[in-house]
Amino acid sequence: MKHSLQPKPVLLPSPVLIVGTYNSDGKPNMMNAAWGGIVSSNPPCISVSLREATLSYHNIKKTEAFTINIPSEKFFIEADFVGMVSGRDHDKFSETNLTPEKSKLINAPIVKEFPYSLECELIKQVELGSHTMFIGEIVGIIADSEILTPNKLPDIEKVRPMLWGSFGSNAYYNIGTKLGNSFTVGNELQRS
Amino acid sequence: MKHSLQPKPVLLPSPVLIVGTYNSDGKPNMMNAAWGGIVSSNPPCISVSLREATLSYHNIKKTEAFTINIPSEKFFIEADFVGMVSGRDHDKFSETNLTPEKSKLINAPIVKEFPYSLECELIKQVELGSHTMFIGEIVGIIADSEILTPNKLPDIEKVRPMLWGSFGSNAYYNIGTKLGNSFTVGNELQRS
Repeated sequence: MKHSLQPKPVLLPSPVLIVGTYNSDGKPNMMNAAWGGIVSSNPPCISVSLREATLSYHNIKKTEAFTINIPSEKFFIEADFVGMVSGRDHDKFSETNLTPEKSKLINAPIVKEFPYSLECELIKQVELGSHTMFIGEIVGIIADSEILTPNKLPDIEKVRPMLWGSFGSNAYYNIGTKLGNSFTVGNELQRS
Repeated sequence: MKHSLQPKPVLLPSPVLIVGTYNSDGKPNMMNAAWGGIVSSNPPCISVSLREATLSYHNIKKTEAFTINIPSEKFFIEADFVGMVSGRDHDKFSETNLTPEKSKLINAPIVKEFPYSLECELIKQVELGSHTMFIGEIVGIIADSEILTPNKLPDIEKVRPMLWGSFGSNAYYNIGTKLGNSFTVGNELQRS
């Protein structure tokens, strides 16, 4: 039986995006954001939406750059922590024992221990009520060599990313097993 | 060792969004899109980015409405199929044996067999090169009673959503096991 629910922003799965920026004094900062996703292929763009209350919001406004760092599942405690406290009164890199490394392409830090990071240049901002959507062009990717496929792309089975179960479960999960190949399994339903 | 990769839109995990729309003749259509995510909490908004070549793009431009239907893992073949063919020459609902049901709130169909659907009213469009981002305000949610938590939200462990491994694996996956509670496990790193 179908139920009508109150409108809520519940997408399953939601990603775990660790947004890297520099504070105005040059100190590296990071935060956990679930509101975002790929928004274009060419140029490759990703969005992340932040509230004005966050320090990262102001950092991106100033530096016009950010990284999206993808944590592997073993970093779920660190990922949660950087979403709970503010960079205004915490040095989140030192408190998590994670290492900031300056991107060579843009003015934002990557999280060295994470399997890969998207280097993003701010190209657009869209005001949406509680949140401002920052759209970044992905100008580069920094990845650990061990997580790459033969054609040099991040392999989900090696990245072992985490995901967020949104407000229903309020919990993080890892990925399970492969169901089938995309743009392939659907052929079963093609008319002969 | 870190490698610099060519910029590509590789987010892990990526969601599997089945976008429901009506064609200009009123026939229901659906497609598989991975470029999207939540973009705001209040009002609750979601984005989905489509190429002009798709029929769904033109449908949304006309009807200013769409649904985002979340398939459970058992529908991975159907989900793949509706991303492989065009509604211009396929009746994707009848060919997948899925049932369109008109939303009571907006001018778009939901996929009845899927665990839940977001009913979205188009509020903004952003041109981004290859793709146009459609931002929909989530004005309602239609969900199966069996997938709800006690406080009436979709429970990821009952929804059993699928996810896409992006261009590295070109495959779909299910969710794995719970890692820990969000806004909770990070407390371990709080200074005493």
